[in-house]
Amino acid sequence: MVPILSIVGKSDSGKTTLIERLIPELTRRGYRVATVKHDLHGFDIDREGKDTWRHKQAGAHTVIISSPNKLALIRETDRDHSLDDIRRAFVRDVDIIISEGYKNDTQPKIEVSRAAQQQELLCDPRDNLVAIASDRSHDRGVPCFDINDAAGLADFIVKRFLLERALPKVALRVDGADISLTPFVQNFMLGTITGMIGALRGVGSPRQVEILVDRGVEPAKRG
Amino acid sequence: MVPILSIVGKSDSGKTTLIERLIPELTRRGYRVATVKHDLHGFDIDREGKDTWRHKQAGAHTVIISSPNKLALIRETDRDHSLDDIRRAFVRDVDIIISEGYKNDTQPKIEVSRAAQQQELLCDPRDNLVAIASDRSHDRGVPCFDINDAAGLADFIVKRFLLERALPKVALRVDGADISLTPFVQNFMLGTITGMIGALRGVGSPRQVEILVDRGVEPAKRG
Repeated sequence: MVPILSIVGKSDSGKTTLIERLIPELTRRGYRVATVKHDLHGFDIDREGKDTWRHKQAGAHTVIISSPNKLALIRETDRDHSLDDIRRAFVRDVDIIISEGYKNDTQPKIEVSRAAQQQELLCDPRDNLVAIASDRSHDRGVPCFDINDAAGLADFIVKRFLLERALPKVALRVDGADISLTPFVQNFMLGTITGMIGALRGVGSPRQVEILVDRGVEPAKRG
Repeated sequence: MVPILSIVGKSDSGKTTLIERLIPELTRRGYRVATVKHDLHGFDIDREGKDTWRHKQAGAHTVIISSPNKLALIRETDRDHSLDDIRRAFVRDVDIIISEGYKNDTQPKIEVSRAAQQQELLCDPRDNLVAIASDRSHDRGVPCFDINDAAGLADFIVKRFLLERALPKVALRVDGADISLTPFVQNFMLGTITGMIGALRGVGSPRQVEILVDRGVEPAKRG
């Protein structure tokens, strides 16, 4: 599982600016970053008149545009996705996901706070707060970094989220719903699956395995 | 596997227009459609100054914006993805994928052709051509529809791609590479997996199962 870290804080506290500074620090350390922006009000991203815009206007649920160096996707959804949903369904080939917002999600958080703007923090360690970035000191039992110390925060993130994860992980989703698995069941499934596919041509000692079973859609059952 | 159908044809033959007409016809019949546009020249989609644009400018590999009714993703890629790649990695919860372009991909194709614009078709049945939409008749051994007959084409698509698929399918990807599976191996894996997960709480008689095994990334090995 790719680790997720949320940058939270009041409006205009400097979340986007901190993320802009963290990305190059993490990139320089050899990690690939995905970002997730939470927008509760909806957003416009496609441009009127483009082919993808025309597909969407015609009622496509999902539109994708793919070129040799970039891919973009826009899709409808019927609920506000959790960060875990987003990781599972859409994020590939990165080392860490940094989200902007998602204060109420369960993922680990760094809170950004500026004295001129607020006295109280939004989060405490019960909210899975792991660090603070601020222009004054806070005593919440978690490390507090200067709001401009992106390098120090990046070192903290690497140590906390990127170096200390080596355990095998198995995730299972059935008909779109996550099934929770105990470590015992994960290890059982890991052994069964790696054993089952080990004899197939092209399978050596895999780091990542994805299996998709699709027994076929019964058409026109939806809507 | 969600079926894929490519709408191909020369530039300005009317591909986008045909897709715009097919989407509501398929939607009306109860199917959800995803579209994929092939763009060999690159494209701009995000807007300067937006938070997602700032994340991307700072070097994020992937940026996502998520709201309760829409989700968008923009990511870098190092190659031109096949339609199968795109289906596997990015498409969820739809019944059919209609692509615009991808003449050289292996997926089934409908060619759009207008007499005023071209005499010869681009494809023949060896290219997996399954139908033609044109303002004149063509004899290529596949059905030829009037270019304006979106309803007739939609009926054809439903019959050909949506009603006639009921077989269990298992797809396996190891460290990002597709592993081809014989029907025997697919059935073996299907039985093993459904047996293995059948006793778990929350798993009834699943239609779709996704399993992700991730034994952990060794950090900073990349780049």
